[in-house]
Amino acid sequence: MKRYILHVEYDGTRYAGYQLQPDVITIQGELETALEAIYHAPVRIHASGRTDTGVHAHYQIIHFDPPCELKNLNLKAALNTLLTGDIRVINTAIQDETFHARYSARERRYRYIVSTRETALDRFRVWRFFHSLDFLAMQECASILLGEHDFTSFCSAQAEVNHKRCTILRSAWEQDETRLIYYINGNRFLHSMVRSLVGTMVEVGKGRITPDEFASMLELRDRSAGAVTAPPQGLSLIYVRYEHPIPWTKEIL
Amino acid sequence: MKRYILHVEYDGTRYAGYQLQPDVITIQGELETALEAIYHAPVRIHASGRTDTGVHAHYQIIHFDPPCELKNLNLKAALNTLLTGDIRVINTAIQDETFHARYSARERRYRYIVSTRETALDRFRVWRFFHSLDFLAMQECASILLGEHDFTSFCSAQAEVNHKRCTILRSAWEQDETRLIYYINGNRFLHSMVRSLVGTMVEVGKGRITPDEFASMLELRDRSAGAVTAPPQGLSLIYVRYEHPIPWTKEIL
Repeated sequence: MKRYILHVEYDGTRYAGYQLQPDVITIQGELETALEAIYHAPVRIHASGRTDTGVHAHYQIIHFDPPCELKNLNLKAALNTLLTGDIRVINTAIQDETFHARYSARERRYRYIVSTRETALDRFRVWRFFHSLDFLAMQECASILLGEHDFTSFCSAQAEVNHKRCTILRSAWEQDETRLIYYINGNRFLHSMVRSLVGTMVEVGKGRITPDEFASMLELRDRSAGAVTAPPQGLSLIYVRYEHPIPWTKEIL
Repeated sequence: MKRYILHVEYDGTRYAGYQLQPDVITIQGELETALEAIYHAPVRIHASGRTDTGVHAHYQIIHFDPPCELKNLNLKAALNTLLTGDIRVINTAIQDETFHARYSARERRYRYIVSTRETALDRFRVWRFFHSLDFLAMQECASILLGEHDFTSFCSAQAEVNHKRCTILRSAWEQDETRLIYYINGNRFLHSMVRSLVGTMVEVGKGRITPDEFASMLELRDRSAGAVTAPPQGLSLIYVRYEHPIPWTKEIL
């Protein structure tokens, strides 16, 4: 049986995160419900990673094994008809069973936007933060994160994993007239990690923590070291890199 | 008495346009209600121009004459506290009575975004249009509009004005991977004019009208010449230029 791959974009505003949970609306739940309506059988999906409550994804990769072959199925059109407008299937592909949305991923890329002025149009896409911030101090913290580190100090207690080492390939702040934008690329990310890093770097920007103290917090490997978590709406998963590029098709699956 | 100036940004999605009307929610209505709550007296506001139902503004300029002087008033903070999140006051200024938001404006700039793929995150900011479009033919139409023309063929019957001549200073399509973006700058715009131009240029992009036919439609000066109106959510007022730059203040008004 073929394995189906989906590029999904979603607006996380009204979802309790990616992962299926009872009694709340989740991205996984909505997609599995739509797939069950198409296949008339339960379908389990697998994502490149989970996103927290309120976090967006420009580029989430999902795979599933269809319970049967449906002739003349336009999978993308069928899903987009069944889903509400805040979850969209952008592209589809077919891979063999050696491809796994999570385990085959080599790199995840996240972006966090802080708006330094009021905004109506981007209010669900940014953290509006009007204090003036020390950009160079925040940039210094960002560069400390490059390479392999144990991120115990910057993840939530819910991060149940074997180890908390992550390799960070890019970590940098950029700025334009009205925004500070943080880009971080890494092989893996822990629960709440990007938001903990951003929230704590913003504390550095405010002058409440020095870049040296930020570096010491990382070294401490202690969840109670004082990390501050930024709100979710500024965060978006923007790319997932696999060893081989995904062969997106414009044909009907 | 001083004249107060506001730079206002709004998400037009849930509003019946800028202009005050009975029984519907409008941008003007929301702002005048908030000002009345501040001054305990009716306040009439004047904008650089009206935006239609569902159209956004990154940069709308508004003036009003306060009915009284309030000591220690932080006008921006007071308005932003009273308004909902989809209307935000970005900046304030003081001018003398020779400044008029509408009559002193020299140039308005609009942007229209067509998304050529599905999108969840920008669904209220773009026209999602998935046909393939002839970009060069659309660009040819855009350049026909430069200079002074009578736009009777490209405005709605509701445009009650002395004359329908507008001088267009910029008219160009740009494109990136997933979007076609139209920029138009002019001294004035008529009711529904940008949406009529965009909708009809998209017909050209689809091959249903040639650029020559588009030019003939403009020459006809006839509302029934066949213009097609694009939906509002792709359109945004992005700048208004005045003879003298507005002296935005960071101080409390």
